[in-house]
Order: sequence, then structure tokens, then C-alpha cells
Amino acid sequence: MSIRDTLNTILQSVDGALAVIIMAYDGIPIDEMSVEQSDFDTQLLSVEYAAVLKEIKRAVDVIKAGDMEEVSIATTEMRIIMRVLNDDLFIVLIMRRDGNFGKGRNLLNIKSYELMQELA
Amino acid sequence: MSIRDTLNTILQSVDGALAVIIMAYDGIPIDEMSVEQSDFDTQLLSVEYAAVLKEIKRAVDVIKAGDMEEVSIATTEMRIIMRVLNDDLFIVLIMRRDGNFGKGRNLLNIKSYELMQELA
Repeated sequence: MSIRDTLNTILQSVDGALAVIIMAYDGIPIDEMSVEQSDFDTQLLSVEYAAVLKEIKRAVDVIKAGDMEEVSIATTEMRIIMRVLNDDLFIVLIMRRDGNFGKGRNLLNIKSYELMQELA
Repeated sequence: MSIRDTLNTILQSVDGALAVIIMAYDGIPIDEMSVEQSDFDTQLLSVEYAAVLKEIKRAVDVIKAGDMEEVSIATTEMRIIMRVLNDDLFIVLIMRRDGNFGKGRNLLNIKSYELMQELA
């Protein structure tokens, strides 16, 4: 399966999914798929999420809590799940607040392994 | 129920829970309960988690994603769930990697309302 096919599978399989994006830690979006009605500024999102992950990675290192695998953020409007792919890249799933969070986490976990192999 | 009773209920009810801490955004721990065998530097944790939450709050504001409610972090060694209580305080549940993440999230969500009333 190509990277875009995998992203599309995630997007189509998770109720409430709005966009799924592969990003680099330097804030550059690598690849993305989003539902038609969504209107994301992917460039802005990438920069902000990369900044968040870098800050969390720093904190996790300081408190010696192992290696970071996944970060999820719930707000009054959306659910965001970020998963580390390798030292350079991570994947972000953006969902509606009422989206299927559990399925999103699970599928991102499973598909991360496929993506890591595609990206290696 | 007192605040410490509520914290203890969370700690005892969630498989794999190691500590539950109420913290201020300025990095000061307010109250905590932990299992006996745990050995957390709560002061260090509080400062780092407060820094993480402030960075996420900033990012969430920039991307206009609503108000932050919950952040969870999974590492190779542990699961950490942070939930906003009010403008000043948040609660953190630290669990083993194999702890019951779903129950932890759910209970933290439910108990947050009780704690918010106690702390108001």
C-alpha cells in the first residue's frame, strides 16, 4: 500500500476523522489527506504540532520517562492524535470532538508500522 | 469527598496507576497521592508538565482549536493523562505503560467535575 493509500484508509475508517498528515519535526508537512469539507492550514498546523512535540520530547527526556510514542490532545472542538514514526517524522490524525477516539488511536498505532516501513 | 479522598479513589480504581497529582500552571504541585513503591520527583514533574501544557495551550490558541481539555502522553515506559481543572490548575494521572488507559481517562474526566467544585 502506498503512503497516500494508507493515509486514506485511516481517514475513511475512523468516524469523525478530518485530516491525517505526516509531518517532519522541523515543521514541514510531508503528505496529507483530508475530507473535502475541512479547511486546514496544514502549514500552520505542522509548525505548531512540531513545536508541541519537541517540547513534550524535551520534558519526557528531563523526567526520564522513556521514549515518546504518542500524544493526544482533546479540546472543546477537536481531538488530535500524534504518533512518532521515526526520529524525523510523525503522523497526526485530526478528528471532530465526537469522533471515534479509540479507533483512531488503535488504527494509527497499527498503520504506523506500515508507514515506518514505507518511509524507511 | 475531600480532594485527597478523590485522588485516592482514582489511584486505587485504575489498574497500573502510580500517582495522581493536582498541579498549578506555574509548576507548583498542590496535592498528590502515589502508590508506595513509586519514587517520583513531583517537584520536577510538575515543572515539566506545566511547561508542556503551557506550550500546548499556546499552540491550541494559535490554530484556533477551541479550549484545551485533556492531553495524554504515551512513552515506552509510562502513560500520562493531564486534564485541565480551571484556569490555574490541572490534574495529572501517571500510569504504568500497561495500565488501564481507557479507565484512567474516563475516571479523570468524571472526577474532574468533583474536584473543580472542591477547588472553586
